[in-house]
Amino acid sequence: MKPRISLITLAVADLERSLVFYRDGLGLPTDGIVGREFEHGAVAFFDLAGGLKLALWAQDNLAHDTGLEKQPISSTAFALAHNVEHRQEVGAIMAAAERAGAAIVKAAQDTFYGGYAGYFKDPDGHLWEIAWNPHMLPG
Amino acid sequence: MKPRISLITLAVADLERSLVFYRDGLGLPTDGIVGREFEHGAVAFFDLAGGLKLALWAQDNLAHDTGLEKQPISSTAFALAHNVEHRQEVGAIMAAAERAGAAIVKAAQDTFYGGYAGYFKDPDGHLWEIAWNPHMLPG
Repeated sequence: MKPRISLITLAVADLERSLVFYRDGLGLPTDGIVGREFEHGAVAFFDLAGGLKLALWAQDNLAHDTGLEKQPISSTAFALAHNVEHRQEVGAIMAAAERAGAAIVKAAQDTFYGGYAGYFKDPDGHLWEIAWNPHMLPG
Repeated sequence: MKPRISLITLAVADLERSLVFYRDGLGLPTDGIVGREFEHGAVAFFDLAGGLKLALWAQDNLAHDTGLEKQPISSTAFALAHNVEHRQEVGAIMAAAERAGAAIVKAAQDTFYGGYAGYFKDPDGHLWEIAWNPHMLPG
């Protein structure tokens, strides 16, 4: 297949709560919850750089749509990394996330690869890394 | 923060097995495993459209780096969607994933929003959707 991820869907327990976290807390752009006309369709999309979209969808609906049983969110299953251009941006974003209700997993600090990064968890436990990586600066 | 995800890291049990799945099975471009000079650094990166990168990293190393305890992968925690331009591409990619060892979660079929899509799980249980969505065609 072509090397492309179009959409990252995060399964959430409470769509309104997660919308507030990502829209108001992290400042990501969205038209809010759409798709309510479908029984299992209510979703919030966020337009990200490069044409990528982030979606928030109730875990109940993801389980329904896939036919899979719900399993607890694992905070060590994956991480979404937001890389920044300048080292000093890391602390500011970590602080904003904490104010928005994120759980700080690891305060910003030097990394083994020569960068500077911190981790937090969103309200459902999904893991984010905010990183200044001199080998992987944003384009 | 700016609306950007730089890197999606998938935690895996067996880095070599996952490399083979994504590189040889799905055909994603990579330089293979790098970072072996760091005790917890061995990682495989894949360059995707729009500047996004996918990374495979041992779950043990993600747990070590975050200080979190390992928790089982949940197949209903998130989904990565690969959208295609033409409906008939869905079946071909699902078949390639199955040949590569993916577990088919839901065979390709019409979706509630007027598209056509299927789901599979990678060797660790990470969920992928291959979708033709007339409202969200690849750019």
